[in-house]
Order: sequence, then C-alpha cells, then structure tokens
Amino acid sequence: MKNTLLVAVAALAIALPVTAPVSAQTETPAPSPNEIVNMAAPEEWIEIPAEDLLVMTLAPDADGNERTVVIQLMPAPFSQGWVHNIRLFARSGWYDGISVNRVQDNYVTQWGDPNYDNPEATGEAKPLPEGLKVMGEDEYVSSFRSALPDLETWQRALLNGMIAGGLAPADFAVSTGDWDERFLKDRYAYGTILARGWPLAISREQAIWPVHCYGIVGVGRNYSPDTGSGAELYTVIGHAPRHLDRNIALVGRVISGMEHLSSLPRGSGALGFYTEEEAHKRTPILSVRVAADLPEDERPLFEYLSTEGETFARYAEARANRRDPFFIVPAGGADICNIPVPVRTFEYAVEE
Amino acid sequence: MKNTLLVAVAALAIALPVTAPVSAQTETPAPSPNEIVNMAAPEEWIEIPAEDLLVMTLAPDADGNERTVVIQLMPAPFSQGWVHNIRLFARSGWYDGISVNRVQDNYVTQWGDPNYDNPEATGEAKPLPEGLKVMGEDEYVSSFRSALPDLETWQRALLNGMIAGGLAPADFAVSTGDWDERFLKDRYAYGTILARGWPLAISREQAIWPVHCYGIVGVGRNYSPDTGSGAELYTVIGHAPRHLDRNIALVGRVISGMEHLSSLPRGSGALGFYTEEEAHKRTPILSVRVAADLPEDERPLFEYLSTEGETFARYAEARANRRDPFFIVPAGGADICNIPVPVRTFEYAVEE
Repeated sequence: MKNTLLVAVAALAIALPVTAPVSAQTETPAPSPNEIVNMAAPEEWIEIPAEDLLVMTLAPDADGNERTVVIQLMPAPFSQGWVHNIRLFARSGWYDGISVNRVQDNYVTQWGDPNYDNPEATGEAKPLPEGLKVMGEDEYVSSFRSALPDLETWQRALLNGMIAGGLAPADFAVSTGDWDERFLKDRYAYGTILARGWPLAISREQAIWPVHCYGIVGVGRNYSPDTGSGAELYTVIGHAPRHLDRNIALVGRVISGMEHLSSLPRGSGALGFYTEEEAHKRTPILSVRVAADLPEDERPLFEYLSTEGETFARYAEARANRRDPFFIVPAGGADICNIPVPVRTFEYAVEE
Repeated sequence: MKNTLLVAVAALAIALPVTAPVSAQTETPAPSPNEIVNMAAPEEWIEIPAEDLLVMTLAPDADGNERTVVIQLMPAPFSQGWVHNIRLFARSGWYDGISVNRVQDNYVTQWGDPNYDNPEATGEAKPLPEGLKVMGEDEYVSSFRSALPDLETWQRALLNGMIAGGLAPADFAVSTGDWDERFLKDRYAYGTILARGWPLAISREQAIWPVHCYGIVGVGRNYSPDTGSGAELYTVIGHAPRHLDRNIALVGRVISGMEHLSSLPRGSGALGFYTEEEAHKRTPILSVRVAADLPEDERPLFEYLSTEGETFARYAEARANRRDPFFIVPAGGADICNIPVPVRTFEYAVEE
C-alpha cells in the first residue's frame, strides 16, 4: 500500500507543471499567494450549491450597519446528520430570534437559544423542532475511502499536504520511505491534507475528519455521550483549537462576514458566556436561511478554488515558502490552518 | 552531540515525577490543564520584573469602561535592541496620543502614529525621539547557547517540547535516534520548545527565535532592509502566522487586556487599516508606561509558571492529551501555540 501510493504520486509529481520559484536574482518579484490565486483559470473555481449556503442575519450594529454572515455547510461524507438538522432548524424558523451568547477570547463565538444549557440562563429553553436526527460519536470521523474514493483526488490531496509541509513535488518523487513523518508533519494526526475544498486530517487507520481552523463552524454539545443537535453552533475566533478535533461535529465554515462574529465583545462569565448583567451584549440573530430558499436574485453566490487544481498546489507552496517582497526568510512549511482555501463571490454572466 | 543529548534527557526523564494519566476506569476525573496549573507550588511561579512590563491605557470604550493592556517585554537574548527602543519610546512619552490604526481579521491589531507609513494617512508623521538603536536582520534570531546556556534548562525545554509533541518521557528515554522528527514535529522549524517562559523555535544550525503565537507583540517594519524601530507595534489576533517568524522582531506578549485589542472593529482599508472615512474607529492610546516608573502601589504584579518546573511538564502533557470530562479522544499532541504559558496576577503578602 505504502509503495503503491509513493509510485503513484511520484508519477503525478513529474506530470505537474508546478511553477519554479522566481529566484531572488531575477527582476520580477515572486507573486504572493493571493496573486497566484488571482491567476487561476475560471474552471478551477467551483460554485458552492445554494443548498450548502446558510445566510445568517444579525441585528444591525451600533451605527445601524447591516451584519450578514454566510456559512458554507460541509459536504458528504462529513457530519451529514448534523447538517440535515441545521437545514431543518433553518427551514422551520427555529434559529430566528436566537442570539450570540458566548464570546471567549482566542477560542469561540457561540450562538443558540440563550436559555439552553447556558450557565447564565434565566428563562425557559425553546422547544426543538420535530424530525431531528441523533448521531453517535463515531460520526465525528468518516472513512477515508468514502471521503476520497478516487485515486486522483487522493493524489492531489496528498500533494497539496506535502507542498504545504514545505517539500516540492520533486523531493517527494525521489523519496523511498517515511513519507508520513516527512511530508505530513502534524502534531494532532497522522497527517493533514487539503482535499475537496476542506482542511482534513487522517489517522493511520484511514479515518478522516475535518479540522478546527479559524472560522470553522461546529456543534455545541453537552458531556459525552451527547453529540449536540445543531441548535447550538460556534465558530473558532482564535488559534486553531485542534484538540477539539474528533471530539465535536464540524459542520461548515464562515465564508463571509466573519468579522461580525470575531470582533464581538468578549463575555465575562464562565467560558466567555455573557453574564445576566451583560445580557444586552448578546447579539440578536434575526434570521437564518438556506440560500436555496431565497428568491433567486437575493441568493449570495460563492465559489472556492479547487484544492485539486494546479493553482491550489502553487498557492499552498507559496503559503509555505513566502517569497513576495516583504519576506526575507521563507518558513519552509505551513500548518494546515495557515493555508485557508480561497473563497470568493461571483456573478453569473448576463447574456445580452 | 545528538547521542549526548539523548542520554542526558533520558536520565532526566527517569528522574522526573511526571504524573501518570488518570485512567478512564478510575473514579476521579482527570484534572484539566488549568486545574494542574492551580496545583503548582508557589516557587514555580516567577515574578515578571516591573522593568519588563508595559502598561498601555486605551481611551475608555463606548460605555465608558477603562481599557488597560499589559505587555510583558521579551527577556535577553531576544530582540533586546528593539526592547531598548520600546522602553525609550515609553519613557519619552512618544507613544502617548498614538492610536490603533489597523485591525485585520485573523491576523493583527497594529498601533502607532496614524500618519507614519499608513496607506490611509493624511497628516505628517511625528518626529522620533533621540537615542534609538538600529538593528540588523540577523538580530531576528539568537544563538541557542546564549538563550539556553545551561544544560538543565535545555533538557527541561526539550522535555516540554517533547511532551507537547505527544510523547511521554518514557518514550523518549528509550529512543535511540530521529529525536528531531519524532519529538519536535513542527512545520516551520527544526523543532519548537517552551523555555524560560516563552515559545521558541530552533533551526538545525542552533539558531533560536521566539514564535508568532496569539497575543505575541512584534515590531511593524517597512520592506527589507528596514527592521523597524518599535514605533509601530502589533499583536496577533488570529491563527498563529508562523510564516512571519524570523522575518520580524518579536518583543513581547499581551498578558492582560488582550480582549481590548482582539475585539476592535476590523478596518476596511488595505491590510485592515482604517480608511479616512472610518478614522473615528481608531482607538486612541492615552499613555504607555514602563511599570517600574509607576508609583509602587500602581504597579501591576504578574508572574508566570516556570517552563522548567514539574507542573509545566504536566500541564503541557495535559494540553496535548486532554482527559478532562468533556473530551472523548485525546489529540496525542499540541502545537507550540496551543500551550500558552500560564500568567497570573498576584499580590505581595502584607506583614501584620
């Protein structure tokens, strides 16, 4: 198995036209990671289905400015039971009128029913809608084969993880062993890869799971064996709390309006919950809609850069080895959460 | 050299009374990392000298609440030229009246003269004080021997890095090679260690440098060969931007009031600078003082948990392998920025 993979990826590496770094001696400055992304071919951008977009409208800020947060839900095979529940919560209107109740510095912003499982709660919890699924803890991880069934995707993912780890494809092609330790260095897992648009980690037993990077969205839960329903959600607003990986269901990521969640005042209660005295700091959530349910002209349109394309490989390599003018010493590598998958809005071309 | 180190640390590992993990079968829940810290012996806490504390007073917030930020300056041998300058800026009153001009989400909050090197500036820059030192880029790193001259400190640092990497001392004691790849896994450096109270990285050439974790304070600079004076400072408010390591001088860390910098509104200009239209969002900095210059009864008192003590080794191990009740799968490791060095306030005992 190990040798088969190595040979396969070596062949891929030879075929890949990854651009050689611009030497410091040449006159053209090396492109920044963002400049590389901007050079991607149109077909490398993948539209996010409207069914996978949640539009969360917060109450306007103190100056009266609108605050909209857009969340991309996670695709199969990850956390699909919770994703089902979240669409159900949104479609039943259950989320409308909840609030942001917890903001813990360098950790998470969490929203839900202020009276549910909140150490600072005073009222009664809102009844949950019918039709929710209940998931087991085994569903925090998926099977590698169901997540990346085709060889090409796995090769690309491995290549991107490898490049992010600071090695060029040529190095990998000549390697004959220890590919795990050398190419996928990670303190929390056997290895990490960027595949199907998401940062993922794998175990030696070929389990695979999404990881806690900045802006990821997870499901608040009580003590085990509770796994949470999706009524309580949080996003990461600090350094990646990777120790939560495999302990909580991850269901998506904030792709727009993150600043509306990360810059909220921190709560002074236990775990960063707002105390009763600071209940006025709880940000009301006016509504949460699945984009597919909005009128067509109100749907936000987003696309992400394919993690399986040539441009992503160049981008990951450039994130790991910054050569754009500000930098004097390239790092030689980048951790999985320091290679965010590029996401942007787009418009459909209007036919004349 | 390699074998000598291994033998030395192996001996240390045997001598170390690192507490065995509480098994899931026992009835007492395993202590959380914070609970372990709270059990530290008084002599494991090290007072931070008043000369190393900067007290930065921001203008009150919209509700009239005071906002004080305390920064611990970095000890020798790291970045001492810039630290000299920062004390000089503070003592000459130069920082008084500057402002927070840049808040870039998941990156940095930066403060300084709003008219210096700011793409959104409209006025004239403030003249710099006399007596500033000018440092070369070689001073972004230090020599390993000057940073950790004594064998015991190095052994403890290595042990703590190793434990954070997810291995117990016993594993290390029986190892006979490849200690670097196995014990100090890091994508940005040969290895990372926690020593003398700071997160540090090392190269194969035995250079050593502080790393960009959440809350670290660095020196804004222009393009190379400029290395910055200390007039512009920033702190990290997102995932560790480790690609900046060795590219910028790091001079300290925020040890109190971080939320006043991390929860500020993000700037909408280039690089997160506030545009001229949002100049009202710049938070005024009323004053910055070296704590040693304050009247004795106004000096803040802080101490940090020795990274060379037994408790820190247990704490780092517990951060890497969470067994407290919420967790169901311990991570097996932790990256250097996910093991923050505990810092707390204290009071001198009053003699009766």
